[in-house]
Amino acid sequence: MKTKQEYIDSLKELDPEIYFMGERINDVVNNAHFKPHINSAAETYKVAFNPETKELGTAISHLTGKRINRFTHIHQSNDDLIKKVKLLRYLGQKTGTCFQRCVGFDALNAVNSVTYEMDEKLGTNYFERFTNYLKYVQENDLMVGGAMTDAKGDRSKRPSEQNNPDAFVRIVDENKDGIIVRGAKAHHTGLVNSHEMLIMPTVNMKEADKDYSVSFAIPVDTDGVKHIFGRQTNDMRRKEDGDMDTGNAKYGIVGGEALTIFDDVFVPWERVFMCREYEFSGMLVYRFATYHRQNYGACKTGVSDVIIGASASAAEYNGVEKASHIQDKLAEMLHLTETLYTGSIACSAEGIELPSGQYFADPLMANVVKHNITRFIYEIYRISHDIAGGYIATIPSEKDFKHKEIGKYLEKYMQGISEVPAEDRMRIGRLIENMTGGTAQVEAMHGAGSPMAQRITYLRSGNLEFKKELARKLAGIKNNEKD
Amino acid sequence: MKTKQEYIDSLKELDPEIYFMGERINDVVNNAHFKPHINSAAETYKVAFNPETKELGTAISHLTGKRINRFTHIHQSNDDLIKKVKLLRYLGQKTGTCFQRCVGFDALNAVNSVTYEMDEKLGTNYFERFTNYLKYVQENDLMVGGAMTDAKGDRSKRPSEQNNPDAFVRIVDENKDGIIVRGAKAHHTGLVNSHEMLIMPTVNMKEADKDYSVSFAIPVDTDGVKHIFGRQTNDMRRKEDGDMDTGNAKYGIVGGEALTIFDDVFVPWERVFMCREYEFSGMLVYRFATYHRQNYGACKTGVSDVIIGASASAAEYNGVEKASHIQDKLAEMLHLTETLYTGSIACSAEGIELPSGQYFADPLMANVVKHNITRFIYEIYRISHDIAGGYIATIPSEKDFKHKEIGKYLEKYMQGISEVPAEDRMRIGRLIENMTGGTAQVEAMHGAGSPMAQRITYLRSGNLEFKKELARKLAGIKNNEKD
Amino acid sequence: MKTKQEYIDSLKELDPEIYFMGERINDVVNNAHFKPHINSAAETYKVAFNPETKELGTAISHLTGKRINRFTHIHQSNDDLIKKVKLLRYLGQKTGTCFQRCVGFDALNAVNSVTYEMDEKLGTNYFERFTNYLKYVQENDLMVGGAMTDAKGDRSKRPSEQNNPDAFVRIVDENKDGIIVRGAKAHHTGLVNSHEMLIMPTVNMKEADKDYSVSFAIPVDTDGVKHIFGRQTNDMRRKEDGDMDTGNAKYGIVGGEALTIFDDVFVPWERVFMCREYEFSGMLVYRFATYHRQNYGACKTGVSDVIIGASASAAEYNGVEKASHIQDKLAEMLHLTETLYTGSIACSAEGIELPSGQYFADPLMANVVKHNITRFIYEIYRISHDIAGGYIATIPSEKDFKHKEIGKYLEKYMQGISEVPAEDRMRIGRLIENMTGGTAQVEAMHGAGSPMAQRITYLRSGNLEFKKELARKLAGIKNNEKD
Amino acid sequence: MKTKQEYIDSLKELDPEIYFMGERINDVVNNAHFKPHINSAAETYKVAFNPETKELGTAISHLTGKRINRFTHIHQSNDDLIKKVKLLRYLGQKTGTCFQRCVGFDALNAVNSVTYEMDEKLGTNYFERFTNYLKYVQENDLMVGGAMTDAKGDRSKRPSEQNNPDAFVRIVDENKDGIIVRGAKAHHTGLVNSHEMLIMPTVNMKEADKDYSVSFAIPVDTDGVKHIFGRQTNDMRRKEDGDMDTGNAKYGIVGGEALTIFDDVFVPWERVFMCREYEFSGMLVYRFATYHRQNYGACKTGVSDVIIGASASAAEYNGVEKASHIQDKLAEMLHLTETLYTGSIACSAEGIELPSGQYFADPLMANVVKHNITRFIYEIYRISHDIAGGYIATIPSEKDFKHKEIGKYLEKYMQGISEVPAEDRMRIGRLIENMTGGTAQVEAMHGAGSPMAQRITYLRSGNLEFKKELARKLAGIKNNEKD
Repeated sequence: MKTKQEYIDSLKELDPEIYFMGERINDVVNNAHFKPHINSAAETYKVAFNPETKELGTAISHLTGKRINRFTHIHQSNDDLIKKVKLLRYLGQKTGTCFQRCVGFDALNAVNSVTYEMDEKLGTNYFERFTNYLKYVQENDLMVGGAMTDAKGDRSKRPSEQNNPDAFVRIVDENKDGIIVRGAKAHHTGLVNSHEMLIMPTVNMKEADKDYSVSFAIPVDTDGVKHIFGRQTNDMRRKEDGDMDTGNAKYGIVGGEALTIFDDVFVPWERVFMCREYEFSGMLVYRFATYHRQNYGACKTGVSDVIIGASASAAEYNGVEKASHIQDKLAEMLHLTETLYTGSIACSAEGIELPSGQYFADPLMANVVKHNITRFIYEIYRISHDIAGGYIATIPSEKDFKHKEIGKYLEKYMQGISEVPAEDRMRIGRLIENMTGGTAQVEAMHGAGSPMAQRITYLRSGNLEFKKELARKLAGIKNNEKD
Repeated sequence: MKTKQEYIDSLKELDPEIYFMGERINDVVNNAHFKPHINSAAETYKVAFNPETKELGTAISHLTGKRINRFTHIHQSNDDLIKKVKLLRYLGQKTGTCFQRCVGFDALNAVNSVTYEMDEKLGTNYFERFTNYLKYVQENDLMVGGAMTDAKGDRSKRPSEQNNPDAFVRIVDENKDGIIVRGAKAHHTGLVNSHEMLIMPTVNMKEADKDYSVSFAIPVDTDGVKHIFGRQTNDMRRKEDGDMDTGNAKYGIVGGEALTIFDDVFVPWERVFMCREYEFSGMLVYRFATYHRQNYGACKTGVSDVIIGASASAAEYNGVEKASHIQDKLAEMLHLTETLYTGSIACSAEGIELPSGQYFADPLMANVVKHNITRFIYEIYRISHDIAGGYIATIPSEKDFKHKEIGKYLEKYMQGISEVPAEDRMRIGRLIENMTGGTAQVEAMHGAGSPMAQRITYLRSGNLEFKKELARKLAGIKNNEKD
Repeated sequence: MKTKQEYIDSLKELDPEIYFMGERINDVVNNAHFKPHINSAAETYKVAFNPETKELGTAISHLTGKRINRFTHIHQSNDDLIKKVKLLRYLGQKTGTCFQRCVGFDALNAVNSVTYEMDEKLGTNYFERFTNYLKYVQENDLMVGGAMTDAKGDRSKRPSEQNNPDAFVRIVDENKDGIIVRGAKAHHTGLVNSHEMLIMPTVNMKEADKDYSVSFAIPVDTDGVKHIFGRQTNDMRRKEDGDMDTGNAKYGIVGGEALTIFDDVFVPWERVFMCREYEFSGMLVYRFATYHRQNYGACKTGVSDVIIGASASAAEYNGVEKASHIQDKLAEMLHLTETLYTGSIACSAEGIELPSGQYFADPLMANVVKHNITRFIYEIYRISHDIAGGYIATIPSEKDFKHKEIGKYLEKYMQGISEVPAEDRMRIGRLIENMTGGTAQVEAMHGAGSPMAQRITYLRSGNLEFKKELARKLAGIKNNEKD
Repeated sequence: MKTKQEYIDSLKELDPEIYFMGERINDVVNNAHFKPHINSAAETYKVAFNPETKELGTAISHLTGKRINRFTHIHQSNDDLIKKVKLLRYLGQKTGTCFQRCVGFDALNAVNSVTYEMDEKLGTNYFERFTNYLKYVQENDLMVGGAMTDAKGDRSKRPSEQNNPDAFVRIVDENKDGIIVRGAKAHHTGLVNSHEMLIMPTVNMKEADKDYSVSFAIPVDTDGVKHIFGRQTNDMRRKEDGDMDTGNAKYGIVGGEALTIFDDVFVPWERVFMCREYEFSGMLVYRFATYHRQNYGACKTGVSDVIIGASASAAEYNGVEKASHIQDKLAEMLHLTETLYTGSIACSAEGIELPSGQYFADPLMANVVKHNITRFIYEIYRISHDIAGGYIATIPSEKDFKHKEIGKYLEKYMQGISEVPAEDRMRIGRLIENMTGGTAQVEAMHGAGSPMAQRITYLRSGNLEFKKELARKLAGIKNNEKD
């Protein structure tokens, strides 16, 4: 297993083609915009060595019997699913943000399960290929980006119906050594500081879409791959001197997403895990989405713990922590946060074994978690604004605070209770400001699938006919009375 | 174990002093008001014999090694806690209402755990007494009512401060054979069709309140005990001919609650499980409340399944089941229901072992379940009204429907789609009407503790100081930076 | 203008064919089920004489210049619209329930405006006919029921597509004297104690539906008309001795709705106000719906004022009125109630003049009011349950309270603070129980149109294209930049 | 009246001491950070000349009879109050942001009314002084900042109890010419581009706080006054080339708030409008707060109109505008927006005349508006994120879009439907991103008073005793039955 530092050093050996703000970024590790993301991802390495978190942060590989970083593990039990949840909450508390590595974690588990079932049904040998790849990942403790969402073009059309045939990633050619792919994957979390990327299709496909039914893994610096890093709320503050105005200077906020372009990229056969088997594309989407939705009551509750703490601190610094309405609002934040957490725990405890022998979170409950996230995170942020007070939206800059002439006025007038210096109050305000607005909200809404995706699952899995029968029976509707 | 019929027959052997609508009720089993409650409780006996539900409906006694009805079992594992949840959901689906027996179930578990710890600390022998009682309950498969809530008088005052000294049940005397108690317990669910009742204190007590710190068990027909049965929404419809207008004619709606008065009642020592040990009263309240709050995402989700099914049926009969807004509302009902269920599963999966060796639901999560019930049940009912349509509030009586002259008009004008007779549509409407208004709502709000009780738990268990430290660290507040 | 007593006496002169609970009701005025509804409607007569409310309760007829009861008035100004709102809130506070007469009030205004515009466009003389009818209503101060909702059958089909051709009221024949109609109108509020009824179509019609495009007015006791009175929550309690258990013994809860059947009923031409002019049916529905939706932030806020007061009283009697969480919940109830009220005021203040010279509430805002009702009323009721406490769901009967032996126990144990007798606490509990569950909720949901009806209006009137242009301009989208 | 250009030119003649990002800003008009705020405020001047908006944008001065810019007007009627609301909505639609000038508008109206009543009661001559000031403002069509919120220090302490005696602005000295003030006002909206500022106390004062009871007006560039401009979400994007990434490049987002420091500033007597009359401080706070809360259903609904339009456009560009769930979400946004608007209209329509002859919005209803803003704005933003899709959180920079090599990939992969170029889709995404997160949310929460301030008003003005009496009467509680 890699240590935190080994992880960071290993990134220096890669040479991905990354663009941000109109520039080609060559030194990922020292780039001010990427550093917090790297720090955050690095914590996923650190947990494997920290004695207190080792139990959560590692697992025993079912392939090699060796101790591996849990983020490269295939879940072997309900307990593994629950440990994942606890690990993610811990990391959310520690970093206050996204640590990015669960995307690849979930992608590995999803592809593992589907290649197994494809081979069973189709007689292909994807599972063997994938197992080899997985061993490589486990042994080198790699950070694997996972990408599902395509560019998508016109959302009302299927891949094969698009005016732009590359709106979804597709196979444009193949030869004896491998395939050539073209297209783009959006919202590629953690990509700029990953070693590998594991690509999956994004919707259930039909036969006409079979060239779009493709899954594969390649290094992030493969020829023809270009990553354009997206902007985040307040991104430019990272380039300023000082550490106050970014809020969470060390770990940043939100994950760091890139648009990854495949400009006719070659993928060798041993790294191809689905190639036109369109009838399995839906299963792969569903598996990944479920594993990924499971997480949202874990990492986000960790992040919410920080926001609750920050709100309570702001109230303390304002002198009102014990006011009954503040206590009531804190209780509400706790309630919402723990409701989210119960979802992640429950879908893990009720997870089932798949044909491959691995464990899979209960899909209905995993959707419940994610769907509540799209509401409760907004509400938690809203309450944090209510508790903290209006000052969080108008704090002067760190430069003003440290200005030789006017700094003293901010020391005097930005202070709340006299026991706490103005700087602490400003810092807590900045933390809340940065953690609760903009990009972080949108991620909660759309990460792991938009709300409508969950509602479709409800209607599919909700077993309405069974429930109608229950009702008819109790209503005394005769032709249904069988008891 | 008793069969359903044995249970019903056994009630005939008791002679509790029950009043309802100004009358002393002598024949409980044949009383139109009580019958549905008995039918519902009887299902808790039936599940132990039904091959499909036996696994959920029974357990192996840790005392005797014999197979017993699960409702008399002390939870020996997380799996027991989860099975309880699944059993309750099943029974909720089956009956569409409260089946009452979990109150005693939870009381048995609460008293078992607390008597063990009292003895450990105080050197008393309550646990032995209680174990004997428990064996008796298990072997005779008794239905045990559980009562916690006192009359309470002025809610701003402690028991010992009340103008009415009997506002909380108290020990008024004792002798070598036992104690004499006076007071009243409210909202005594299932009491009229129980064999026994297990009494617990309702708040954390201080020394001045020690005479109020009392727990004991007695038969429901003990001398000096009087039960006054409370009214429910639409209760008088049960006395009408026919079965349409009550909605759920067989099982009724809601639990059936009595005010139980102790008019200087003697309790022999072997049935006394707490006698003035005020410092354990809070623990007993907390244990019972937690075990009981665990249930609400179980039984109520079973009941919600029926309501979802009834709503979908009403939409079908109205001809609009497939309309997008109806589907969306059904999805929302499913979402809310499954959110509740995740809470009950999670607090069971994360339940811990107590000193007595029994398992206890995670208290913070159990509170989460109950608190969401106080919101989501109302929302589920509200959506059911939206989906079903206004007709559910103005349906003419069954007598009119069966009237020789005007019945034909109702056949004609109460019909929705032509494939379904008006009667079925009326029946589904009545089911929704009766399941979703009035008493059923209030029970969801206050059963197992009012919302404020949960919020107090959040603030106590929410670990705000830890969370504040997380935030300060990420905010870069210097005196807190230790990493 | 009729006094309260004259109104009640006048009902005795009518002989409508009414059925309830399988019986033909002959003596409406002394029927226990109808009495509260009559008492409530009678208050609409009383306000016209009460010096404090006369200004609101009366108006000057634009036809005769005489002072008339406002419920028969055609709105001549924004001030008239606002006075209507204030009058309804006052009556809601006074009765705590529906006083039924606004349905006819709104129907009169709707038909007045549409007949005017029909005549203008088609050269018909409906407006003259209607003006004569209106004079008759004003001069005799009649209570006019208004009916729109048809039986409807399969809700996915238009009137002319139904298997049952009578699922919507239709013209089956006509002759030189008038028309013959068949069908049924549902949810006919206040009908059993009205003098007249004014019938309108319930949906926008197409040419195929023209026989269904019919509006007319007839006395409630016209030959061939049958009324079947629908059941309400706890309806049977009205027949019991005493006045405690019904909650609001004098005025009852909710409106009292009937299914009115037209069994080939003759309507003379002078009472026909629309006869196959299908292209005006949509306008009539829209006019009535708007006038009627305007009301919901008026009467319901009056009723909510009572519920707020009852909740505060229950808290007082429980000894917790000043607890911070109770105060906060009362604040929330006030907030929701006043939000509803602002809607009714605003749509009145922004009402516009129609071609007939009368005033019409702003339709978009009137829909806002009604839509909020479908949410906030449920929330207000929910909070009332929270505040009042669980006792409201298990109160023993008045008969038990007055029982010679056990009554004393209820005196003792149903009491809260010692300054207030148990009876008062029970009465307030009963009031809340009866006002907040079941029928009253459904009425709030579906009265004046179901939620979906309002959402359709939003999409039609929301002017999305204009708003898209605003956004494009600010986004700097070039082809749209005109400034 | 000043034109838009005259306004901008007039700012050049002032020399306020402003700091931002550690620098003293000398050229306000050309500063990239301030320009959008100036453009937005300038629209308040433009409306007075635009023929379509002149009626809303101007009024006739009650002092001079001359036509003046409405933002300097004292409301003379309910119609004036309603025109204010319509003007603000129009400007919100036009600018998509805060145009800042209503703070001073409301301050002028508040101080006008209170000085009149102070003089009436105390025999002072503040009203005359203020009238002279008002004439000066009207004749020169000045932009007046209004400031109420003090630095406040420990929020649990009164001004006179603070450790820092300057935590609230106070009179530190006085002489024959005027007073000397010290302290700071926070969140001073629009200050950097105002001519004048009108200062008011921020809480109800007691005698001990009388030095803190002070109101006055001075030019923004008065000696000793320093303004430190606060940071906003994504503020640094304004300094980048191009206009895409800021979202609303012309008008910016949110108001632009400064912390204004009074470092022993001299105010001449003719500009002092309250000087230690602590018993009127509460009235002044209440008047200003009410006038200001009235606005929130006006300007914010204008802004919401833009967000609705942007969301609908994003859906259109994504190809899903007509999907039923998108339509339903748009309907919900319309519903929430119009609910807010009804509040502003209603409190204006029901506004009352004050002793000074001016009109005052209904306080209870004005609080309703603001309180709903603190919820609905968050919900509107949340829905906009749902509709627009996840892309709004990861859009690459304009620099990447215009990059000679990689720009073409963004053209290709950021496009939705083929009829609309990628740039338009990116622009709409940026508009939503910038309008809906961070500062804009906090402003909606705390501007014009935090939620708790509204709840306190509810409890004070909600007339609970009257409502309790209504309930007792209907419940048949005897000692209250008077009818």
